[in-house]
Amino acid sequence: MADFKIRGVVPPVVTPDNPDGTVDVESFEKLINRMIDAGVDGLFLLGSTGEVAFSADDHRRQIVREGIRIVDGRVPVLVGCIDMETDRVIEHAKHAQEMGADAIVATAPFYALGGLTEMEEHFRLIHEAVDLPLFAYDIPVCVHTKLPWKLAIKLGREGVLAGVKDSSGDDIGFRYLCMENEKAGHPMSILTGHEIVVDGAYLSGADGSVPGLANVEPYGYVRMWKAFQAGDWARVKAEQDKLNELSHIFDVTTGVQGYAGGVGAFKTALNLMGIFKYDTMPRPVKSLTGQNREAIAQVLRNCGLL
Amino acid sequence: MADFKIRGVVPPVVTPDNPDGTVDVESFEKLINRMIDAGVDGLFLLGSTGEVAFSADDHRRQIVREGIRIVDGRVPVLVGCIDMETDRVIEHAKHAQEMGADAIVATAPFYALGGLTEMEEHFRLIHEAVDLPLFAYDIPVCVHTKLPWKLAIKLGREGVLAGVKDSSGDDIGFRYLCMENEKAGHPMSILTGHEIVVDGAYLSGADGSVPGLANVEPYGYVRMWKAFQAGDWARVKAEQDKLNELSHIFDVTTGVQGYAGGVGAFKTALNLMGIFKYDTMPRPVKSLTGQNREAIAQVLRNCGLL
Amino acid sequence: MADFKIRGVVPPVVTPDNPDGTVDVESFEKLINRMIDAGVDGLFLLGSTGEVAFSADDHRRQIVREGIRIVDGRVPVLVGCIDMETDRVIEHAKHAQEMGADAIVATAPFYALGGLTEMEEHFRLIHEAVDLPLFAYDIPVCVHTKLPWKLAIKLGREGVLAGVKDSSGDDIGFRYLCMENEKAGHPMSILTGHEIVVDGAYLSGADGSVPGLANVEPYGYVRMWKAFQAGDWARVKAEQDKLNELSHIFDVTTGVQGYAGGVGAFKTALNLMGIFKYDTMPRPVKSLTGQNREAIAQVLRNCGLL
Amino acid sequence: MADFKIRGVVPPVVTPDNPDGTVDVESFEKLINRMIDAGVDGLFLLGSTGEVAFSADDHRRQIVREGIRIVDGRVPVLVGCIDMETDRVIEHAKHAQEMGADAIVATAPFYALGGLTEMEEHFRLIHEAVDLPLFAYDIPVCVHTKLPWKLAIKLGREGVLAGVKDSSGDDIGFRYLCMENEKAGHPMSILTGHEIVVDGAYLSGADGSVPGLANVEPYGYVRMWKAFQAGDWARVKAEQDKLNELSHIFDVTTGVQGYAGGVGAFKTALNLMGIFKYDTMPRPVKSLTGQNREAIAQVLRNCGLL
Repeated sequence: MADFKIRGVVPPVVTPDNPDGTVDVESFEKLINRMIDAGVDGLFLLGSTGEVAFSADDHRRQIVREGIRIVDGRVPVLVGCIDMETDRVIEHAKHAQEMGADAIVATAPFYALGGLTEMEEHFRLIHEAVDLPLFAYDIPVCVHTKLPWKLAIKLGREGVLAGVKDSSGDDIGFRYLCMENEKAGHPMSILTGHEIVVDGAYLSGADGSVPGLANVEPYGYVRMWKAFQAGDWARVKAEQDKLNELSHIFDVTTGVQGYAGGVGAFKTALNLMGIFKYDTMPRPVKSLTGQNREAIAQVLRNCGLL
Repeated sequence: MADFKIRGVVPPVVTPDNPDGTVDVESFEKLINRMIDAGVDGLFLLGSTGEVAFSADDHRRQIVREGIRIVDGRVPVLVGCIDMETDRVIEHAKHAQEMGADAIVATAPFYALGGLTEMEEHFRLIHEAVDLPLFAYDIPVCVHTKLPWKLAIKLGREGVLAGVKDSSGDDIGFRYLCMENEKAGHPMSILTGHEIVVDGAYLSGADGSVPGLANVEPYGYVRMWKAFQAGDWARVKAEQDKLNELSHIFDVTTGVQGYAGGVGAFKTALNLMGIFKYDTMPRPVKSLTGQNREAIAQVLRNCGLL
Repeated sequence: MADFKIRGVVPPVVTPDNPDGTVDVESFEKLINRMIDAGVDGLFLLGSTGEVAFSADDHRRQIVREGIRIVDGRVPVLVGCIDMETDRVIEHAKHAQEMGADAIVATAPFYALGGLTEMEEHFRLIHEAVDLPLFAYDIPVCVHTKLPWKLAIKLGREGVLAGVKDSSGDDIGFRYLCMENEKAGHPMSILTGHEIVVDGAYLSGADGSVPGLANVEPYGYVRMWKAFQAGDWARVKAEQDKLNELSHIFDVTTGVQGYAGGVGAFKTALNLMGIFKYDTMPRPVKSLTGQNREAIAQVLRNCGLL
Repeated sequence: MADFKIRGVVPPVVTPDNPDGTVDVESFEKLINRMIDAGVDGLFLLGSTGEVAFSADDHRRQIVREGIRIVDGRVPVLVGCIDMETDRVIEHAKHAQEMGADAIVATAPFYALGGLTEMEEHFRLIHEAVDLPLFAYDIPVCVHTKLPWKLAIKLGREGVLAGVKDSSGDDIGFRYLCMENEKAGHPMSILTGHEIVVDGAYLSGADGSVPGLANVEPYGYVRMWKAFQAGDWARVKAEQDKLNELSHIFDVTTGVQGYAGGVGAFKTALNLMGIFKYDTMPRPVKSLTGQNREAIAQVLRNCGLL
């Protein structure tokens, strides 16, 4: 368990919903198979992108169960166990383990106010309770605290953390995290969730990436990873720049914000591309319509995806 | 249901834990009975103070079941249904209804990013799904969005919201909320969670208060409410000032923050006063010890409570 | 100097500008005379409302010079010395003293990042350098740090601060500030800038108020103060409620924010009421026009001011 | 003017102070000459690092006058004109022009609240008033608003902005800024202030860097730039990693924060290295002492600089 390592492209899987809110299993299969065929190195279920926050427990379990069934051991599966505090996270983590997850991913505590003391104890308690590699999910935009790199390194050295999935937007902290992880003998897998600057994260020493945009275009991220492995930085940058043109699906919409504009853009694109049967968004979020849908279609056409 | 009104002092009930984390039912009885005997007008279970964030679902249900059994209809019981998004909240709300709650309390969505569109739809969906009066819990320090008074008034006029429990720290928004609620025919019960300035909230037009400190000293809040009903403002202020001396249990501790210092102070005080058998805090939070415990004891002595 | 006390209504004076940006002295006279005639107890020049941030040094001095000339000793004049760090503030403060200010008002340092150590030293250095009573201007929305009440009390006890002008929006900190100031022998004058809940601030123990809205309607704030002095709380609240109807000039506009909507509403109202010849806003802010101007006129008509 | 381009390493110059607060001209000469000898491509006076916020106007002018005299045309000099609002900035800018600045650098407005309308107008008015290339200084940590890349591109296309100095910490916005600037025909020079991840900024398309740490170690930043020009990414990263070891001068201190720990570390290091006669900090900030000074010395020894 302490030796679990993951490298490369590990997309956070978008969850396709039927109009009644249940998992659209057929589209889920298409999406996952397409990404595995493209050469991704792992998959992350129930990330922020995977509508973990919106899913009641039964829905969460359906997503994990179906996801693991579809993957069928072809790549490792990380499962997000996202909840407010320790006992609630541990409950999710035990279910994830029963269903066959290869690793779990947990954020710092949220909702109730606390500090680093509680954050550290939280990760220790999860690690003690669950016999799976534990990734810290550093996402201050959602949990409103930042995992300091010094604490991450301490927990990595002690075997509490198997890795960090960084969505912090703090490229300086990320650099120190990679540098100090290396000095410590590389106990952790450091993954970036910053899909627009994955090239910079690789230059900083990342072990891999967790790009939401890879749901729409996995091939580019896989090519970028291979170029990085080959030391071909001009190619790495060129692939990133190309992917960034596609990323304008996030900023061509108007009147929407947050999840509605972000995951909404993914679902709209996947629906337009024929991979998702529906573009259903989880309650209380609405699907993109009209001009917004058309604007995304135009970006896809510009990028040769439609 | 649209006619549910609550006025007066409605403390958010602190949950006593055994050292193993289960509910200490005996202490729970002492605490609740003492507050009802003091004359409170309602009780709020599973508020932020009531460790809702820390409790796995079974623990939440034990708290509600025991709380409602102990109250035994003597005062109305509001139950917090706090979770990240709509479907998760509705699940808690249905359980609360089955167990006999008189009203439910829900925050805006949190964790996933959104805007007012999602916030409004969220409250509408909960209202449609559950046949109980719905209070909006406005607590931006935990959910990181503010319920605008204009939206609250709109939802109150339409019968979606039966009230607002305001812990926003925005005394200007609170004033407008009370004024406009009055103009609209007073469809909502407006309660303040600002225990240090309840007098100012009454002056602004609040229908009542939800003071955590009433777990430690319910009598003062009840006297303040009665003085307010009698229009005796000098007495209202004097009672608040006296309670505020007790409130220094929040700021005499060092090295702790957030829940550890806030609810930690309550549990320490209640344990020192013999109302709670233990001062157990929910994982990953630690109990107050040493100098911090002694500092709280000193405040209690200064206030004649020890 | 240590004995300077100010009580009552001390409006922050809006600065009328000619279309070329110079001070419109005639309108300035009308505005100041009207407020003094209404019975205000002091005036605050170059507050945030008084366009201190927008005024180059010569303009600042013209405002102070003309303001003090017009007031002509009828009420005390406080002068805002708002700048990024200590030396810059001291320079403004020395000019204010030369021009005859009765007291100066300074914020915590801003722009450069610092902590409480720098904030405390900053106020000490200003106090040492300038022989005038010093008010701390607590306005975290502009300077992004909060003056803690414990530090304010410490500096008040030592004679560094003669008072606090609180625009923090933190009604809990304000309550403690008033209570502890009282216990310390009332060394400081505590003024609230929270024009919508001045009644609550009086109940909390404020010595006075600094309401921007008093530029438009000074009579109501003076009546509220007198009712407070007489202990007539029903009247205090009624005056505040009436003023709050006028305060909707802040929220009936659309497409503007911050200073443009706040001070913009004051200038538009004063222009509509014939007190200001122009509604000129300081660069780079634009004056309110069209529907926004009409919406403010409608509020004034509703309040019998037009 | 529209054709002003700057590329490469452009350090923000730390200002050495005598114990009485005046500019220590001799140390200033040593510092500037050492950086020019190391091969930097320009210098930035009166940046946040250059104590612009702390300096009264006379002191600001002394810094610019002496700086430009010492540089003596060997490299271009950018001068920070940092103040709250437009008219105040323009006043500084005109002085900078008189003293021979090659370009000016201004932030978005701060202190008074506003929005994008005011920010855009602010830059336009400065550009119209001053006949020098204008760089936007994007530093939300100080001014609390972010310059959106779409607005920067618009102003760059129109010739209002000659460049952007990015200290935003938003590596995604930075990437889009570089990409869209390129598409627009590269009208602006895009410089990063992110000294810890300059390599990533170069990969993203930056035209250069403004690293504070180059005051202490200019050679490494110059070598990194040359390696980048040669396309030798392994070397680029290796130089950055080495510089990052030195950057621990920021995090080995305790009990200090913000400017005291950041520029304090620079001044302590430069004093220890014999480049600065004193480590005087501007009021109200204190110099680093004792253990903090020793900790910085140890980092310098580890890096072979002492």
